[in-house]
Amino acid sequence: MIDDVYPTRGASPAAIERRDPVVYWPDRPSTRMQRDDRLRRFERDGYLFLPELFFQGAAEALHQEAENLRQYALRERPEIAFFEADSEAVRSVFAVHRHSEVFARACEEPKLLELVRSILGDDVYVHQSRLNYKPAFKGREFYWHSDFETWHAEDGMPRMRAVSLSVSLTPSLTTNGPLMVIPGSHKTFISCVGETPNDHFRESLVQQQVGTPDEASLTDLANRRGVKAPTGGPGSALLFDCNTMHGSNGNITPFPRTNLFIVYNACSNRLASPFCGTSPRPEFIGAREHTATLPRAGR
Amino acid sequence: MIDDVYPTRGASPAAIERRDPVVYWPDRPSTRMQRDDRLRRFERDGYLFLPELFFQGAAEALHQEAENLRQYALRERPEIAFFEADSEAVRSVFAVHRHSEVFARACEEPKLLELVRSILGDDVYVHQSRLNYKPAFKGREFYWHSDFETWHAEDGMPRMRAVSLSVSLTPSLTTNGPLMVIPGSHKTFISCVGETPNDHFRESLVQQQVGTPDEASLTDLANRRGVKAPTGGPGSALLFDCNTMHGSNGNITPFPRTNLFIVYNACSNRLASPFCGTSPRPEFIGAREHTATLPRAGR
Repeated sequence: MIDDVYPTRGASPAAIERRDPVVYWPDRPSTRMQRDDRLRRFERDGYLFLPELFFQGAAEALHQEAENLRQYALRERPEIAFFEADSEAVRSVFAVHRHSEVFARACEEPKLLELVRSILGDDVYVHQSRLNYKPAFKGREFYWHSDFETWHAEDGMPRMRAVSLSVSLTPSLTTNGPLMVIPGSHKTFISCVGETPNDHFRESLVQQQVGTPDEASLTDLANRRGVKAPTGGPGSALLFDCNTMHGSNGNITPFPRTNLFIVYNACSNRLASPFCGTSPRPEFIGAREHTATLPRAGR
Repeated sequence: MIDDVYPTRGASPAAIERRDPVVYWPDRPSTRMQRDDRLRRFERDGYLFLPELFFQGAAEALHQEAENLRQYALRERPEIAFFEADSEAVRSVFAVHRHSEVFARACEEPKLLELVRSILGDDVYVHQSRLNYKPAFKGREFYWHSDFETWHAEDGMPRMRAVSLSVSLTPSLTTNGPLMVIPGSHKTFISCVGETPNDHFRESLVQQQVGTPDEASLTDLANRRGVKAPTGGPGSALLFDCNTMHGSNGNITPFPRTNLFIVYNACSNRLASPFCGTSPRPEFIGAREHTATLPRAGR
């Protein structure tokens, strides 16, 4: 058993100082990278907004594929589709890079992979991918959480050496429940209360109860630097550290908010046994077998 | 029975063109009023943001009184307090200007009354006042609605000659579920579907089902000019026409959003019998007896 430096799902909440780097600066950083203001901001804030990761035409193609994949999942792969708690609306579809050539290619976008490798200082693979469809009028909130807290407890991700990317496929507005982050929150691990039931993901991916941070810790984190919600058009993206506290409000506007979510994990940080003692979650939620290193440009 | 020019709560939705002025320009407008850009914007947009209606000290006093009144209502007047659907949190307290000297004076703020009288072209009284407490972490949404639709159907307000004012008593942020409006929506009356049960307010003030506009009409309204959510510090306010479509998303942030809500009705537009045929709602929700004309400055 690997030493658990981030214990969670216990009897009381705790704030544990992060014990891993945020940016894994190489031993001999190139001049270009040292000058890269984006990496410094990522280190400080725990996130980086990329206003034009995909250009308009590419974003439209991804959005079309997201609609196709929703239909495909409903028809042929119901196990990878999750629904809203109180309606028939699809909330998420998982493992989209394994069910769609279009999303597989999007995950391998060279300028994105270069940035991710610079941050993690390692080769990477896709730990999880999904589409989140926040429907118009009745889109429900995603409560605050650190992705790492869940991946550590329920998937067995050993250390903080992974990043999440959320790509907007529809306009992300201040009013349609955009992704919100707490700047600087990635430097503290909030140990959450509660025992994890088996097959917890069946509930947690609809409305999480166990593995959610306590209100006092959230208030403390948010009082330091507030809450931010960067917004942009289709193709804009938010790249954030695996431990950055994030969530989103519901959406009553007539404008749906669809996003592509990709998690890159460092190859040196592949999964161990879940630290909360449960069985691992399914392969389509946390990759154990499909952990091929993503290609480098020019290979 | 007064002729019903805005039929609603029928079998199918309908969009009816507004048959009343938005700004009741006087017959011989003064030069000052003709020049008043605020009235023109209110006429066009259906709302006006007032960034500093109350100064900071005054806003803090109102906020303190809002906390006092929440305690008072829980202790002594439970009938005027309404709770969130899924928690013990107080969502609203009604008739606050009749239970608090502080709020009574706030409703009579001279510069505010002058503006409201300019818009409505008449003397005014308070049709309804309330405090809305959108709690941190679990504040629920208010779905889209036109206030007039409810006041017409359930209170018997004959015509569109009233305005609503929402005063922020805490910071109103883009992230904590601010009030959203659909610019221009006030010029169309969306007739809503469904029969109104008796004592409908017991449910509708927690989560409205009857009297909500259909999704096609909302989409049509929002596609013209989008959705706006003006935000500001404590003491900022949004004044909007009684028929402006508005609502707010939930709030998962650690920052509560408390606001004071006041409705001014023209004295010539006092209530008749409810147009949907039910008994009138209680006095603390829609004033029938307490309709004294608000004082003019210098009287």
